Amino acid sequence: MNLILVSENEIHDNTVIINDSHRLKSISSILQSQNNSSLRTGIINGLLGYAEIIEINNEHGEMKSIVLDTANLTEQPPEPLDLILICAMQRPKTLKKILQTATALGVKTFYIIETWKVEKSYWTSSILGENESREQLLLGLEQCIDTVLPKIYIKRAFKPFVEDELPDISSGRISFVAHPYSECGKHSFPISKPLTLAVGPEGGFTDYEVKKFHSIGFIPVSLGNRILRTEFAVTSLISILTSAL
Amino acid sequence: MNLILVSENEIHDNTVIINDSHRLKSISSILQSQNNSSLRTGIINGLLGYAEIIEINNEHGEMKSIVLDTANLTEQPPEPLDLILICAMQRPKTLKKILQTATALGVKTFYIIETWKVEKSYWTSSILGENESREQLLLGLEQCIDTVLPKIYIKRAFKPFVEDELPDISSGRISFVAHPYSECGKHSFPISKPLTLAVGPEGGFTDYEVKKFHSIGFIPVSLGNRILRTEFAVTSLISILTSAL
Repeated sequence: MNLILVSENEIHDNTVIINDSHRLKSISSILQSQNNSSLRTGIINGLLGYAEIIEINNEHGEMKSIVLDTANLTEQPPEPLDLILICAMQRPKTLKKILQTATALGVKTFYIIETWKVEKSYWTSSILGENESREQLLLGLEQCIDTVLPKIYIKRAFKPFVEDELPDISSGRISFVAHPYSECGKHSFPISKPLTLAVGPEGGFTDYEVKKFHSIGFIPVSLGNRILRTEFAVTSLISILTSAL
Repeated sequence: MNLILVSENEIHDNTVIINDSHRLKSISSILQSQNNSSLRTGIINGLLGYAEIIEINNEHGEMKSIVLDTANLTEQPPEPLDLILICAMQRPKTLKKILQTATALGVKTFYIIETWKVEKSYWTSSILGENESREQLLLGLEQCIDTVLPKIYIKRAFKPFVEDELPDISSGRISFVAHPYSECGKHSFPISKPLTLAVGPEGGFTDYEVKKFHSIGFIPVSLGNRILRTEFAVTSLISILTSAL
């Protein structure tokens, strides 16, 4: 973990006490490899910086709690990526990885949508619960040193979503729909404008679905003839579309 | 799995019998979702196509073996990606993912090298054994529907490798070294020439190491100020450098 995240309501008088196993484990491993007197720390949806270590409480040689001074958290989080990710529901393990990685890439808005080839059983998964999805978003933020939690919207009805909501959501943006075998000759990348990217389920979008996206201005893009795991395809597409190497 | 891979020496008179659990499991799940009479099949380092199912042997409702006809495997594998990946040794779990994903992206040559910040214990990992690394490469090929096994070279001595071998390896290529905070203004991407890409360990290359790469013509590139997990950083960089969207 590259950043310790704390909630605003955990902080009292510029002090925060950390005693949960997830964060203590990361802090222990950071302190084992480097003998720091402060830790890279951020306030969820707030500022970040280095928090001084005030006190470490060990019990039987194991860290039980650590007290940090948050007075010097004064940096702004990094610029968000202005890309809205529309993602068909996935196998829960895959969705976790997508949420984590796209968050690490700077995505701040996710729409998880139903499409024809989404396996119905996936919708019963606990990953859509607020706590579980938040956990993945936090892992992404901890990885990329950011504090701003993305928002996730669930849309179970494809047609009304694409017809009635998506035109507004994607208004003023250049929008792409990932679709194998399509070509995208017109644009040169990266694009500096705001973007929308729609990514299908494991079996892809149906032709009908691609047409619906196309009818509201989405441009089909393909990654070529190699098939990647969805989380890597998402990384690859976002990198190509937005990279400013 | 998108492709069943078989070895040349498993094939006798255009027939192959598959009875190992890894491939049977994938075949069962393919046949459960689609009622195919043939399977996308490739010969390792050879041709690919669709193999007719000749016979399925079940025992107690479970598939015990399947016999395929390989006479129609006549397609060429996809074009390789002309990018040599020089990768510092990683945590074994991370190296597995890098081997798999870079193979799926079409990389055919890996150099796994020692650098200052590589944790020494990683070198004792079984991932460097021929069978274990081959397993990851095969998973990558099965994912992207390719048959050509990449080659892996291990180089434990940084300086002699970079001074004496790398100039020849990277000759005629545009070469990059991934390094945070560097800027790469001169090139526009994607690049159609052959490439070399060097990626550091978790803690990055040292300044000395970056200078050594630079001295033989490697251009430093950065992914910006967000830190990605190494396997996603590799995917992202390769995508940006080579994409022909």
